[in-house]
Amino acid sequence: MTRPLVSFLTDFGLRDPSAGICRAVILSIATDAEIVDISHEVRKFAVRDAALLLWCAVPYFPPAVHLAVVDPGVGTERRPVAVRVGRGDHLVGPDNGLLIMATERLGGIVAAVELREPAYRLPVVSSSFHGRDVFAPAAAHLALGVPLDRFGPALDPETLVRLPIPEPIVGPGSLRTQVLYLDTFGNLKFSALAGQLRQALGELRPGDPLELRPAVGGGQPASTARLTWQATFGGALTGDGLLYEDSYGRLCLAVNQGDAAAVFGLGLDRTVEIRRG
Amino acid sequence: MTRPLVSFLTDFGLRDPSAGICRAVILSIATDAEIVDISHEVRKFAVRDAALLLWCAVPYFPPAVHLAVVDPGVGTERRPVAVRVGRGDHLVGPDNGLLIMATERLGGIVAAVELREPAYRLPVVSSSFHGRDVFAPAAAHLALGVPLDRFGPALDPETLVRLPIPEPIVGPGSLRTQVLYLDTFGNLKFSALAGQLRQALGELRPGDPLELRPAVGGGQPASTARLTWQATFGGALTGDGLLYEDSYGRLCLAVNQGDAAAVFGLGLDRTVEIRRG
Amino acid sequence: MTRPLVSFLTDFGLRDPSAGICRAVILSIATDAEIVDISHEVRKFAVRDAALLLWCAVPYFPPAVHLAVVDPGVGTERRPVAVRVGRGDHLVGPDNGLLIMATERLGGIVAAVELREPAYRLPVVSSSFHGRDVFAPAAAHLALGVPLDRFGPALDPETLVRLPIPEPIVGPGSLRTQVLYLDTFGNLKFSALAGQLRQALGELRPGDPLELRPAVGGGQPASTARLTWQATFGGALTGDGLLYEDSYGRLCLAVNQGDAAAVFGLGLDRTVEIRRG
Repeated sequence: MTRPLVSFLTDFGLRDPSAGICRAVILSIATDAEIVDISHEVRKFAVRDAALLLWCAVPYFPPAVHLAVVDPGVGTERRPVAVRVGRGDHLVGPDNGLLIMATERLGGIVAAVELREPAYRLPVVSSSFHGRDVFAPAAAHLALGVPLDRFGPALDPETLVRLPIPEPIVGPGSLRTQVLYLDTFGNLKFSALAGQLRQALGELRPGDPLELRPAVGGGQPASTARLTWQATFGGALTGDGLLYEDSYGRLCLAVNQGDAAAVFGLGLDRTVEIRRG
Repeated sequence: MTRPLVSFLTDFGLRDPSAGICRAVILSIATDAEIVDISHEVRKFAVRDAALLLWCAVPYFPPAVHLAVVDPGVGTERRPVAVRVGRGDHLVGPDNGLLIMATERLGGIVAAVELREPAYRLPVVSSSFHGRDVFAPAAAHLALGVPLDRFGPALDPETLVRLPIPEPIVGPGSLRTQVLYLDTFGNLKFSALAGQLRQALGELRPGDPLELRPAVGGGQPASTARLTWQATFGGALTGDGLLYEDSYGRLCLAVNQGDAAAVFGLGLDRTVEIRRG
Repeated sequence: MTRPLVSFLTDFGLRDPSAGICRAVILSIATDAEIVDISHEVRKFAVRDAALLLWCAVPYFPPAVHLAVVDPGVGTERRPVAVRVGRGDHLVGPDNGLLIMATERLGGIVAAVELREPAYRLPVVSSSFHGRDVFAPAAAHLALGVPLDRFGPALDPETLVRLPIPEPIVGPGSLRTQVLYLDTFGNLKFSALAGQLRQALGELRPGDPLELRPAVGGGQPASTARLTWQATFGGALTGDGLLYEDSYGRLCLAVNQGDAAAVFGLGLDRTVEIRRG
């Protein structure tokens, strides 16, 4: 890159000025930085949502500084951190699990520090907006090439907070997995990758009939839905449900030109069991 | 321009990372590109909405590459295309009618190709995210100056898919037209241009009384609304309705500092008849 | 800055193409400009909201051109203006009070003009989109270094329109203030700065009990809420209310990981009285 690249992901919302103010702080320090927004409309406080979006996005960037702030613990004891990964990128954000999934797609963490050095923070650090006062300045200085070890004491990467990501259960003939994310089209993304459904059910061809059964519990009835495996949304009739591998390799549920969350009555964290139909 | 310019319009939504990922892909290829977002909040699957927004926007850009992706047919037989227009811009997107209205404001299509050349796609092309895998790379390579005929076989522009845009009926003393778009202020944009209302009713002066009657049908009563022609929103009292020529020459219905869609109970595709009052 | 910087704040919304079109106009004129969005999702016509967001944002920018357009009076007699402030920034927008609060954080207005010179407008000026036709071109030419006095006749800064901002009443042992803004997290920002609460109640320590009583009137009951002063959201239990100084020095009401507006039933412009509890 001719200009240093900074990706930027938050739950700040696009109505408030917070994301714009962080951009201003970055450009005050790294005047030539190119800032690429991933999203600022992450569900408020939804660290896991943000972790998934960052996991989706980072492989498509050239090596960059990735600034990610969803930070319900701002001002408490949670550590502000920066890490370097095998591919050479840096990731900056709170130590609440947000960064970890993404690092696994970039060669893993090779170094981590706690962001303590005052020279790389704003002169006054507030207790409620570390995005502006701590994380954006750190991202900017990293973009300028300041070495990671200047930012504060090294951390053992093993001590970084991990998010609990529900593990799919791959059985012979069935897969149990949980709803991890609802996208803006109403598609549901599961904790399982599509490869894990193939492990459970064998090779899948467009049109293969499947059954999806919400796990009993929570007072909701466990009605079984019949749908098909598809390679494209258009493989199903408009309004029909389909299971598919999304463009990141993840197992997903959609309704062709419809809203799968509404049609199937499934929300975040619901467990489903999938079998051949 | 000192940097190659890429405009970018989609229905991806700003919460999901898709638009950001496409930006990353563009900047991976055309590292100096300047990407200008037109909108990523187009109503889902609303190809006609996107076509109208692109028609509004392109004349205000210097010659550029315009990347537009509203693509309910992704992964089906619909062709991925790029076109060059008289002014020198390139437009890139699915062959579903999205690009055509805009080309007409830029001197018309002078060349068209189907995007088939693997060298100008990502190495792996998914079946559900051609914005990332096909269209963004094509836009980036066009921005770098790769000639259009390298991207795939030439297409006869006459074979490109056209959207059905409802034609206004200009009568002596009346205009029939349909609601084409609701903007975020609650203003309604019609399929007619303001010039067509002048054709029907003669010259219009601020304050001229007009009648707007929803066409009968669909079970909705055809109550007649009385309003005025205005040159500015402020010409009408706060809360009063007005017909006006928007800043693109289109015939529009507004309520001064209010929501015309709600006040007049008019939705997309409703036909209205306008006469002098 | 190596590139001229233009900040950009409007109520245009992110679905419509208006903000993108203004960016295109700016880049047509100032091809190297770096445009930093502050927000385009300001509540429609809410000049005071925009004034507050701009007040929050400008100190974090390097000297720049700040383009701000919330313009319910577009096309009427309200003047289009540009001002220069002590720090050297320029602010561009309608003369409706939007720019004033921000200028006070940048050294005050040192010069003001009415934007009348046709050379720095688009060739055709519509009556409903001065953002595109008047303000964006002015911002771009200012970014290029055109001197302010070229844009039109000088204005006495004292004649610029001021917004009525409700003044807090600082009593001995109590503060009366009004709700000025609801942010996207559901936090309420008051017209008072935190320093004014300290003036009324003396020094505040995390955990200090406080009482918040909505002023009687408007038919709503004046139930008193008990909460605490906190330095961080995490100082209160999840779901508990807190008063705090936000990262701009303003007095705010929040619920830890919750929606204070909903929990306390307080809307814009409501007056509250705060005492020690």
